[in-house]
Amino acid sequence: MQASDPKKTATHLPQGSSASPSTDLNGLDGLDGLDGLRPRPSAAAVEATRRALNGVLKDTQIVTDADALEVYATDWSSAGAFPPDLVVKAESTSDVVHVLQIANTHGVPVTPRGLGTGKAGGALPLAGGIVLSLERMSRLIEINPADMVAVVEPGLITGDLMSAVEDVGLFYPPDPNSFAICSIGGNVACNAGGPRALKYGVTRPYVLGLQVVLPTGERIEVGARTLKHVAGYDLTGLIVGSEGTLGVITEITLRLVPKPGAVETALVTFKDTHAASLAITRVFGAGVLPRTLEFLDHHALSAIRAKTPGRFPENAGALLILETDGPSHERAFEDLSRAAEVCSDQGALDVLVAQDEMQRTRIWEPRRVLSMTLTESAPHKISEDIVVPRSAIATFLERVYALSTDNDVRVATYGHAGDGNLHVNVLFDDAHKQAADRTVAAIMAIAVELRGTISGEHGVGLLKRAFMPLEHAPPVLALQRRLKKTLDPQDILNPGKILPLRGVTE
Amino acid sequence: MQASDPKKTATHLPQGSSASPSTDLNGLDGLDGLDGLRPRPSAAAVEATRRALNGVLKDTQIVTDADALEVYATDWSSAGAFPPDLVVKAESTSDVVHVLQIANTHGVPVTPRGLGTGKAGGALPLAGGIVLSLERMSRLIEINPADMVAVVEPGLITGDLMSAVEDVGLFYPPDPNSFAICSIGGNVACNAGGPRALKYGVTRPYVLGLQVVLPTGERIEVGARTLKHVAGYDLTGLIVGSEGTLGVITEITLRLVPKPGAVETALVTFKDTHAASLAITRVFGAGVLPRTLEFLDHHALSAIRAKTPGRFPENAGALLILETDGPSHERAFEDLSRAAEVCSDQGALDVLVAQDEMQRTRIWEPRRVLSMTLTESAPHKISEDIVVPRSAIATFLERVYALSTDNDVRVATYGHAGDGNLHVNVLFDDAHKQAADRTVAAIMAIAVELRGTISGEHGVGLLKRAFMPLEHAPPVLALQRRLKKTLDPQDILNPGKILPLRGVTE
Repeated sequence: MQASDPKKTATHLPQGSSASPSTDLNGLDGLDGLDGLRPRPSAAAVEATRRALNGVLKDTQIVTDADALEVYATDWSSAGAFPPDLVVKAESTSDVVHVLQIANTHGVPVTPRGLGTGKAGGALPLAGGIVLSLERMSRLIEINPADMVAVVEPGLITGDLMSAVEDVGLFYPPDPNSFAICSIGGNVACNAGGPRALKYGVTRPYVLGLQVVLPTGERIEVGARTLKHVAGYDLTGLIVGSEGTLGVITEITLRLVPKPGAVETALVTFKDTHAASLAITRVFGAGVLPRTLEFLDHHALSAIRAKTPGRFPENAGALLILETDGPSHERAFEDLSRAAEVCSDQGALDVLVAQDEMQRTRIWEPRRVLSMTLTESAPHKISEDIVVPRSAIATFLERVYALSTDNDVRVATYGHAGDGNLHVNVLFDDAHKQAADRTVAAIMAIAVELRGTISGEHGVGLLKRAFMPLEHAPPVLALQRRLKKTLDPQDILNPGKILPLRGVTE
Repeated sequence: MQASDPKKTATHLPQGSSASPSTDLNGLDGLDGLDGLRPRPSAAAVEATRRALNGVLKDTQIVTDADALEVYATDWSSAGAFPPDLVVKAESTSDVVHVLQIANTHGVPVTPRGLGTGKAGGALPLAGGIVLSLERMSRLIEINPADMVAVVEPGLITGDLMSAVEDVGLFYPPDPNSFAICSIGGNVACNAGGPRALKYGVTRPYVLGLQVVLPTGERIEVGARTLKHVAGYDLTGLIVGSEGTLGVITEITLRLVPKPGAVETALVTFKDTHAASLAITRVFGAGVLPRTLEFLDHHALSAIRAKTPGRFPENAGALLILETDGPSHERAFEDLSRAAEVCSDQGALDVLVAQDEMQRTRIWEPRRVLSMTLTESAPHKISEDIVVPRSAIATFLERVYALSTDNDVRVATYGHAGDGNLHVNVLFDDAHKQAADRTVAAIMAIAVELRGTISGEHGVGLLKRAFMPLEHAPPVLALQRRLKKTLDPQDILNPGKILPLRGVTE
């Protein structure tokens, strides 16, 4: 049986001329400029806004000092610096309502910000105006073990939430790599993933309900406190992953699950990437659903070895970090063994099982800091988070390696291979800037061609909006634009994000 | 720790006067009339539509005969008969595009219909016009075991999909009670649940991507073929559960999971409802996640006993159907034992474990036909599907029984107690119509007051739209109305559903 998939047959159609996505890569450099963006507010508008804010907020909530504003001009995306005119540190939902109402009155854009760890530039105030920081709204309001829910404010650090619920025998599964320093509100705004999404899913299914301040300044409550809820359109789902463009999240009701009683971790080594990528699909055929199946290719391994020699076996050309959990050690180990057996059948060189917490940390630590290790390994790095169907991983990697050779740039790949979500890192020096941009654009196109997506967990933000037409046909982009306009008629909230500034008409 | 929840403090506010949901039950009878609905199309518009359809479709796809139309005037909701002017049996996505384009040209409403098993009246053509039947678009296009996805047309029977994927070792978990006769497209349109949602979740997380024809006649593809996907707004989530009001689903890409190797089933009896409802929350405290935890109260048991004497132990005043699954019988049985032990600690009278498939069927069969059994047990039945947080089940049931006494109507309750989703059935004769309507309205209000929802799986359709203001504040209803208008500016698609006709302004 074969799916008909007409959108994949479109090739090099000029954008906007058809109902199919465009595969024209000309001029795509990941940052499609700011033409078409609303202008920065006038000095008079900023001053009027500041005065109005002063009337309803404490002085300590309003930042206007240039040095202090600097901190809010960047995030973890390396997409450049965009200084805001003002920063407001909200301490309550009412504060957020005030900010949006005042911003609408004076036509000043508002960019919500959690803890600034986003990798797609979603928190950057492209058109200046107000950065609305949620960092002070960080209360853990409630944990209810009987209903297995938690209610939190958006500025709470995800890792703190995890610890608090684990203390009472519960579990919040989504674990973006930055969990120790990122905010749960940012996770919800970006629909964050992480290694454990393989077994447990991404952030979306854990968000039961939200309190949201709409771009127009109205406070609404959407969703529910229950797992099932079908009364009306899924407004919760519309806000989750909308990257602060459709509303400011001020309270989140999260679903929790029972904490697994035991975890088992193994490092599985392969002679090369091809052998590892074949093993990935086979594990599921054995009926085991690991909680992580992380992949590191030989370029990623080389960078780790250059930094910490001897950390991983020298004969490994690729490896998987396989982790299972369950109610008991026996059960978790049984699953680990079964998955490891499949890997061995597929030619794994070795399976090293962590015997204690220290060994588990030794396995994970190089993976946790890999993004930084790669950053240190080259003058420049562009990190992507494409997804391809699991069965296409081997083909995808082959094509990426060919691109790397053709364009003379180094590409290191690692990530959540179990769900096909790979972090492809293009590493280059000043002389190879254009080659790197070409490579990134081609990687996006290959991911889409293989029936994947340009972003699995980082979001689109600023850095990937130019690639949206590769994946979405003009009517889909137009519909997204119409939705944005329906919720934010003045384009006040986080303007210039997600949708390309050019070529999308309503 | 306690959540502040200001919306719950609102009492008896007149609708529309505040940002809080209304708890005013005056005049709510579950069917708030058709005032405010668009008028039926004129005979001339219908005739012009028929001619235009004749130009692009085969004669055998267009139904105009009054007797044949009759079949499409009702569904399983008992909400009355609403004969369409025409029925079109689409055989392809192009057919659907044609129908929407023609309907827009002539201003004739279109009501999509799967197999007509909906319980909230979602498929009823309130304003006449065209019923667009998807019954002939029933192909299973693809099953891909490596990617663990299936691609299907909307008219495929859910049970046929289940069997087909189980044949290749995969599993489609959502199991609405009607799975043998309902369509997967209807399931997606209503975000259907079922007993197994307790462990596996409802339909939404299994829908990766959709092909949709918008109310304006544009065909779009939304979502992806991968588990992770965050490029742009979640249009897939917006369409799922929108009950055929925002688009016509013409193709569905579904996520599958590995088929569990073994299932264990037990009947757990309790002396009364209170004991059973306490056991429900405790099972999760033991770290076990059963795949079903179905509850039947003594009124439901009485109806079963009246029909098939001796089926369940006479001393049981309430019971739970507990089912676990896992990769092996040992594992499934271990979980079943642990959950059963908790029930015994909570005063269960007996735990009867099915020893074979026949015994499993004997346990499930009365539950599967319970809706019908109750229908036969009284002149009239109104069946609801509220949800309350798990910890509120005992309180909810106490208040429902008090209502039943006060209003002199019989109320039988059963359902997916593990996730708090209860089917409350109000049984009455002609003399008690008003008392029954009062009881239903009060049940809705109690569910919302206990921080639950008016619908867990049936959807709102026609029958529950009058209750939407109980749960959603005016700005939330207004936003939903604006979304509907954004996607369907002419109000062509399934008009009069989900949102109350009166009292909601954009």
